[in-house]
Amino acid sequence: MKARVHVMLKDGVLDPQGEAVRHALGALGFDGVEGVRQGKVIELDLAEGTDEATVREMCEKLLANTVIESYQVELV
Amino acid sequence: MKARVHVMLKDGVLDPQGEAVRHALGALGFDGVEGVRQGKVIELDLAEGTDEATVREMCEKLLANTVIESYQVELV
Repeated sequence: MKARVHVMLKDGVLDPQGEAVRHALGALGFDGVEGVRQGKVIELDLAEGTDEATVREMCEKLLANTVIESYQVELV
Repeated sequence: MKARVHVMLKDGVLDPQGEAVRHALGALGFDGVEGVRQGKVIELDLAEGTDEATVREMCEKLLANTVIESYQVELV
């Protein structure tokens, strides 16, 4: 089974990487880009029967820095 | 309107970051993690009426390195 985890910076946390992308898109002539946030997506290939709670524990312990990042778990 | 872009390394391209995560999860005692791939997710806040073709152009020109990365666009 597979799980997909999205890790994004929380609202209000400065995202310089996203800001750089926004600026670069403007410089390339793409108008109307009002904001960009960049995060991580982690695709996990797991043993059958792994439950969502285990994946959430992985997020808390390793995948996300919960002080500044939020995460979403999706089992596929 | 918002668009979400997923950028992942293509299959067969070595993913050292994902490999490091897999190793670290094993070291933390999570068994059964068979593989990990790590990619980027970019959330764009766009002017109303921007179409998917424009977002794809952004991917081709800036957001993804199409030699080694594939991307998926999702309008939200």
